[in-house]
Amino acid sequence: MLRPPDHQVAGHQAAEGQLGPLVDGAGFFYKPLQGDDRGAHEAAFYSSFSSDPRVPPHVRAFFPGFHGTQLLPASDGSGPHPHLVLDDLAACLRRPSLIDIKIGARTWYPSAPDDYFHKCLKKDRDTTSLALGFRISGAWIHQGGDAGFWRPDRDAVRRFTAKDVRRTLRQFVSSNPASDPGPPDCAFASAVYGRSDGVLAQLLELKAWFEDQTLFHFYSASVLVMYEREEVEGRRAGGGVRVKLVDFAHVMEGNGVIDHNFLGGLCSLIKFISEILTDPDECSAESNKAQLS
Amino acid sequence: MLRPPDHQVAGHQAAEGQLGPLVDGAGFFYKPLQGDDRGAHEAAFYSSFSSDPRVPPHVRAFFPGFHGTQLLPASDGSGPHPHLVLDDLAACLRRPSLIDIKIGARTWYPSAPDDYFHKCLKKDRDTTSLALGFRISGAWIHQGGDAGFWRPDRDAVRRFTAKDVRRTLRQFVSSNPASDPGPPDCAFASAVYGRSDGVLAQLLELKAWFEDQTLFHFYSASVLVMYEREEVEGRRAGGGVRVKLVDFAHVMEGNGVIDHNFLGGLCSLIKFISEILTDPDECSAESNKAQLS
Repeated sequence: MLRPPDHQVAGHQAAEGQLGPLVDGAGFFYKPLQGDDRGAHEAAFYSSFSSDPRVPPHVRAFFPGFHGTQLLPASDGSGPHPHLVLDDLAACLRRPSLIDIKIGARTWYPSAPDDYFHKCLKKDRDTTSLALGFRISGAWIHQGGDAGFWRPDRDAVRRFTAKDVRRTLRQFVSSNPASDPGPPDCAFASAVYGRSDGVLAQLLELKAWFEDQTLFHFYSASVLVMYEREEVEGRRAGGGVRVKLVDFAHVMEGNGVIDHNFLGGLCSLIKFISEILTDPDECSAESNKAQLS
Repeated sequence: MLRPPDHQVAGHQAAEGQLGPLVDGAGFFYKPLQGDDRGAHEAAFYSSFSSDPRVPPHVRAFFPGFHGTQLLPASDGSGPHPHLVLDDLAACLRRPSLIDIKIGARTWYPSAPDDYFHKCLKKDRDTTSLALGFRISGAWIHQGGDAGFWRPDRDAVRRFTAKDVRRTLRQFVSSNPASDPGPPDCAFASAVYGRSDGVLAQLLELKAWFEDQTLFHFYSASVLVMYEREEVEGRRAGGGVRVKLVDFAHVMEGNGVIDHNFLGGLCSLIKFISEILTDPDECSAESNKAQLS
């Protein structure tokens, strides 16, 4: 039985008659092809990527497995619609915390048509993309026990400042609720961001590939980070930590050049995460400021 | 006696009544403060940078030493004008080859006024900056013996494509003249780009700093690479290889964020240089192309 995923943090949602992704509860995620050429473009990327022998297996593991396209009843009731058949990245996680981080100071590709370019440029300037090299697109953070989830609303996320981003990346690995007046306690920072197979280690693996690969340029793609709070609290191995790349409607050919836009943003995110590990007690970034005037 | 430098590859030149930099032949380089607030801004950067204890000595060595400002007769005959007093980076080099590479896909800073932003954006798109994350601003390449120098003219440099950039980075370390119909031979690649203290090693040192430093964002700054062909041909230690950073009229405070724009471009340049070392025989980058359609 197909249904909307429980934990979607960004993108169009299959609810209230809207077209959105579906899951089958058996490990597959069905993403409807977007109506303009973005859908076809994303399908072409998955097809090219999944058969490219130059992508090493440890890198391939960061991407959802691709199982072709399939005609399925659309979630908006409009009838059969082509869907990408992908691995459900949150499969087997009971109550994951998730954060979706769109990487790159620039979400537009060099050959973008004018209206798309202007739309993206405005959004990159209005959000933290331009300043930080990435922006948070959405978050869904388990508050512990039966306290449910904290999910900043979409408009709030769009207005996130650098300070909000810093706080949300801390909140994501904290045991105290987001409503606490004090700072996030970062109780799970070392279990989620640290460790030899934690988020930081995985981002560094991705970075090494991006320093070298000249096959693809990933505009407007996201890093999706997940973990299972109950696993971490129970000190179970792994803690359900997963780092994945998603959203490939604007991937371009690399033409022999590295994806310096994605790489720069990824390095900036890595620095943010490293700082949380080095200094789990919140301190002001203001102290680290040069004076040019 | 002050005179225009022998080997200036980019920027305003002190010739034909124009305001430009001067050298004294005793190791100092005098850069006239630019008339708008760029001059004052660059002086403020040098002053802040040179007294900042957080900049490690091995990083400081990439920057020209700063010795304050001084009122000197301007090269355009307009009378006394304030000049930055800097180390002459080409001091003690007899006939250096030089290349000036402006780093960053984006030369405009987030708070740039609209007209400057539009001017930079257009130039970033019209040159290779946007696609490669850097552009060549000028080159001055010793052709061996008494054959003089090859210096692509400014308009040609502005029109450089990715292919021209690739070729010029090869030409820079080749023994055969630029006028040769065949490909550059890259005879000096390992002596200049390679080696434990060569260009690549120095760029990697810079990269390590940029992955971590959140003090400054370097918009529109350049990496200047130099070496002495006669030293390299004579297999003398060092070969006069120097890697320096120059042009700081648009350096901004980092505000606790890494300079992802500069870092991305630097990593792209590093990849270009690495490829020349891995494959000194020119081969088409076309073979390294993904197919998305």
